[in-house]
Amino acid sequence: MPETATRPLAQRVAHIQPFHVMALLTRARDLEAAGRSIVHMEIGEPDFATAEPVVEAGVAALRAGRTQYTSAAGLPELREAIAGHYRARHGERVPAGRIVVTPGASGALLLAMALLVEPGDEVLLPDPGYPCNRNFVRTLNGLPRLLPVDADSGYQILPERLCAEWAEDTVAAMIGSPSNPTGTLVPDEAVGGLAGEAASRGGALIVDEIYHGLEYGGRAHTAANAGDNCFVVNSFSKYFGMTGWRLGWLVVPEGYEAHAEKLTQNIFIAAATVSQHAALACFTPDAEAVFEERRRIFGERRDYLADALERLGFRINGRPQGAFYLYADCSALTDDSFAFAGRLLEEAGVAATPGRDFGDYRADAHMRFAYTTSLEQLEEGVERLRGFLDRQ
Amino acid sequence: MPETATRPLAQRVAHIQPFHVMALLTRARDLEAAGRSIVHMEIGEPDFATAEPVVEAGVAALRAGRTQYTSAAGLPELREAIAGHYRARHGERVPAGRIVVTPGASGALLLAMALLVEPGDEVLLPDPGYPCNRNFVRTLNGLPRLLPVDADSGYQILPERLCAEWAEDTVAAMIGSPSNPTGTLVPDEAVGGLAGEAASRGGALIVDEIYHGLEYGGRAHTAANAGDNCFVVNSFSKYFGMTGWRLGWLVVPEGYEAHAEKLTQNIFIAAATVSQHAALACFTPDAEAVFEERRRIFGERRDYLADALERLGFRINGRPQGAFYLYADCSALTDDSFAFAGRLLEEAGVAATPGRDFGDYRADAHMRFAYTTSLEQLEEGVERLRGFLDRQ
Repeated sequence: MPETATRPLAQRVAHIQPFHVMALLTRARDLEAAGRSIVHMEIGEPDFATAEPVVEAGVAALRAGRTQYTSAAGLPELREAIAGHYRARHGERVPAGRIVVTPGASGALLLAMALLVEPGDEVLLPDPGYPCNRNFVRTLNGLPRLLPVDADSGYQILPERLCAEWAEDTVAAMIGSPSNPTGTLVPDEAVGGLAGEAASRGGALIVDEIYHGLEYGGRAHTAANAGDNCFVVNSFSKYFGMTGWRLGWLVVPEGYEAHAEKLTQNIFIAAATVSQHAALACFTPDAEAVFEERRRIFGERRDYLADALERLGFRINGRPQGAFYLYADCSALTDDSFAFAGRLLEEAGVAATPGRDFGDYRADAHMRFAYTTSLEQLEEGVERLRGFLDRQ
Repeated sequence: MPETATRPLAQRVAHIQPFHVMALLTRARDLEAAGRSIVHMEIGEPDFATAEPVVEAGVAALRAGRTQYTSAAGLPELREAIAGHYRARHGERVPAGRIVVTPGASGALLLAMALLVEPGDEVLLPDPGYPCNRNFVRTLNGLPRLLPVDADSGYQILPERLCAEWAEDTVAAMIGSPSNPTGTLVPDEAVGGLAGEAASRGGALIVDEIYHGLEYGGRAHTAANAGDNCFVVNSFSKYFGMTGWRLGWLVVPEGYEAHAEKLTQNIFIAAATVSQHAALACFTPDAEAVFEERRRIFGERRDYLADALERLGFRINGRPQGAFYLYADCSALTDDSFAFAGRLLEEAGVAATPGRDFGDYRADAHMRFAYTTSLEQLEEGVERLRGFLDRQ
């Protein structure tokens, strides 16, 4: 067969951008392999290994031979435990039947989009925002429309904005609270307003609560019961520290349970069994004590890093309430954050994520710094940043 | 909000059928809970727990704190190990860079469809066939077209058939070898022919090799190098006995590596880390000895069950070479296999899967019997079947 023969490639592939930070991460690892020291502030993964009670529950499940498929929507006892978590932490009644356990929050995002999005349907998303969210819309042949948001709205889409932007083909809006990359929350009163605006137009609201639990001040409230058109995506990766186990969940509104289960059967079969058994231990006092201690540590790091970056000339625009990121305006330091990130890595050994991984709006004026490394490393990173800026 | 408010639901949901066997399985479990004994011949999962060397590798990985994300396309050493497996077992050079580790073969199927299928594109599939395959096409907004196949072609689409059926909008054909539900292989010489027919029309061939390794006679050869338009889906679930770990892989042709990695990053982040570390142990002599012993046992069960079913009046049409299913023509016994399956469960305590889970073509004249239970249980099931048929 000649090399020039046409081969199929779906258009969505061209519409989906690779993460720019991956090239940076690869370069950082090359530099480290060559003996350079790199401070990592680009990584969207807690630096803590999974808590011991959770690991031990995983080990026990394996040793007990729990290696076969679970029900498609997840172990009944895990769905009940998540329902219990909503009751205990949020005072909300979310029946286990509305909770579908998924392979990571990635699975929950895919499932939500598969339930809602037809070819040509539009989904509204904030810019900046987590890049995968818009790419899931593309995967299902929908059209993501990014709405520029800035500090004035806490980097969130608020109800009046949703009302103004909702269009003929809009089927859903998706928000993140706490947001990646900005760490900001959607105010509780706004969530109900967003759900109502979407509902009055026959649309859905998808709320990414992946960073729920990682708040450093008031606790965020779940949108699980904010409207009968609300879909909530959550994860065991961040607060519960189970990234590599690939486990998350989707809360669907009443009436969507059977649809969600049918799609889950077909698309995933089920999430990993060992991960589900391990996750049961997340809801024990021992594990919760670990998670809360880690939350305290993240809070300390946030306070340190926000102050330090502001002293260096970055602008944070308020102290983000959650997640483990600072989305820093660097326009006083550079007009090209992508090039800046590259030079920062090469010349100062500090890895951080350029704004363009999160959207288009003022992306060149922003960098995301993750505080997923120790305070000592953050201090070292800040020192290197200071030296780098002094040399400009 | 009034209960009558419209809420969005994508059309694909209506096009995707739930597995009929799930209702049967639920009923079987209810009967068991009420004290009835049920012989399970409906389950598409080996009855063996994961082999000990694999479990212990998983335990060791957890204890070593390997709980964070891996690279999107999988642990480099696992991709190399899979490449080594192709070299050792098939004598084929499949570079690790063409191998993408996925969350189950489900992930590989989704990834292949996401790479290839646009809205309105048609994918040709055999009927009968594994129901999820067509549903992945639907999920990505393609149009599955089922081609009736029967014993004359070994229940496979052969090259001349592909040539005759390929249409304007066809973008790919997907075959399974060994096939679920029929257990038949595509002859080696036909695979190259299928790839060539697809290539000459600018299309792709997707080969489901999920049951590879479970052959009871000649070994199946991989299609990984059958053409530069060939995508191969495989799994750690069946031969390697790792169902609940949710681990599979996709082999993409040269030139698709970066596209596949980009989609994988966005859709999955990565497969479960513990599963990947455990899977490394699949390629050790200890684990291989376990797998080969299990293969021998499956072969014995196949021989017993095929003979026994034929004596009862089912027609098997040859001895299937692989997988762990018999697709039995029951037209001499009933003209409605769905009702037959229901009565068989209620009246005789035997669960088997009605043909309609696998397609439309002569579905009412077929049942799938899985030999994923012990020889003793199979004998008990056959006795119950005999009694049930005698009472008709």
